[in-house]
Amino acid sequence: MIIFYDIPSNLPVKAWSPSTWKTRYLLNLKGLPYRTEWVEYPDIAGLLKSFALPPTEPDDPLLPYTLPAIYDPKTKRAVAESAVIAAYLDDEYPETPAVIPKETRAFHAAFQYAFRATVQSAIAPLFLPRQLPCLTPASQPYFRCTREQMFGAKMEDICPPSKWAMQWAEIERAFGVVAGWLDGASDGRVTFLGGATSALSHADLSIAGWLLWMQFVVGKESEEWKAVERWHGGRWRNLLDVLEPYFDHSR
Amino acid sequence: MIIFYDIPSNLPVKAWSPSTWKTRYLLNLKGLPYRTEWVEYPDIAGLLKSFALPPTEPDDPLLPYTLPAIYDPKTKRAVAESAVIAAYLDDEYPETPAVIPKETRAFHAAFQYAFRATVQSAIAPLFLPRQLPCLTPASQPYFRCTREQMFGAKMEDICPPSKWAMQWAEIERAFGVVAGWLDGASDGRVTFLGGATSALSHADLSIAGWLLWMQFVVGKESEEWKAVERWHGGRWRNLLDVLEPYFDHSR
Repeated sequence: MIIFYDIPSNLPVKAWSPSTWKTRYLLNLKGLPYRTEWVEYPDIAGLLKSFALPPTEPDDPLLPYTLPAIYDPKTKRAVAESAVIAAYLDDEYPETPAVIPKETRAFHAAFQYAFRATVQSAIAPLFLPRQLPCLTPASQPYFRCTREQMFGAKMEDICPPSKWAMQWAEIERAFGVVAGWLDGASDGRVTFLGGATSALSHADLSIAGWLLWMQFVVGKESEEWKAVERWHGGRWRNLLDVLEPYFDHSR
Repeated sequence: MIIFYDIPSNLPVKAWSPSTWKTRYLLNLKGLPYRTEWVEYPDIAGLLKSFALPPTEPDDPLLPYTLPAIYDPKTKRAVAESAVIAAYLDDEYPETPAVIPKETRAFHAAFQYAFRATVQSAIAPLFLPRQLPCLTPASQPYFRCTREQMFGAKMEDICPPSKWAMQWAEIERAFGVVAGWLDGASDGRVTFLGGATSALSHADLSIAGWLLWMQFVVGKESEEWKAVERWHGGRWRNLLDVLEPYFDHSR
């Protein structure tokens, strides 16, 4: 049984991280047996080093080691970083749905760059400070310290409530850019891979992971989330609906 | 016979524009019969409007109408913008090689965003000023005026020779990001689409179009170009070599 390393929160759905949700969705989608091992922030680097894994973000001196990671007893291999894990599972379990078909691997990397430059950079200032109180006491000091260094500001000053409306507009604009990429595809699909395959891609799971995080932090019944559900023709709500069968967080 | 609208220069290879070369490569790759009609810069907007085409860059008040464009007498349709043209030709001539397979259309749009944010924005300051004297007298004043507005600076001040080395380093760094996307693919391919298809994509033609422009402006025998050929394991030189059979500029 695959061991899936995830970061705990004190939210009702313990799993919260947009990056680890990409892999949790994927394991559920592929139907592979797994169990979660919860890792607090200060323990991530030590865990990955214990597997002799290289840094997942070698160019980031602040956060060189990140989750998700998995350990697969079948091959006795540990693998970290959601796209690398997806490619590994596609290769190792070819009987399960492929989320990064080989001809899209370089395109997935370009997508990742473009998505980080648009949506992720717009989400971070509003959501990192609001995530802090949702983390466990064991992770909060580490999270605060690293993110304050990242922004060069106190958590409370990164995006105070007076700036929320402006930042929400920025997030909506960024999701609009991604909607434009999808509109360029031939039909009105909610998912990223189109045409004959019509399958779910790692890009779809990535977008969904970030949407889930937003939903967890603001609350599914909040006005903030209901506004997101109306954006761009309901496209993002539809994506989460499509992925609902893979929203298992009990394991 | 398809009419292909291109922008002339006074360089030995009359065709020079990175954007129109994407379509020229494509017409040659697909083996479709075409002839070039040369359009000077000040005449582009009028031409596209005469076909009742919407702006190719609706969000850019400075340059809303751009080439390439084609007119296809078979369907009596005019089509503008290289990715739109590629999708049109893929759909209309399914017996020719597809460069934007349907399942990669949204990915191509994300690639375009990421490539513009990396390589194109690094190339522009160094190459737009050096392109100016290579244009015909009919296009030079328009080109100067629009590009000086774009940068908010005189052509001669955008990137003077004292800054060339610094800008070349920036361009090499940007191509390194793209090389990283390709390295993430499973094998050491020179082209963007991998795996089972191993075909040329519109993304490959886009990269090649920009490389060609660099080569034309600095000269194929220059030290500047020879350095580019050595970057990232010779990958970019290899891409142009792969496309050499489609480098027909005589039509």
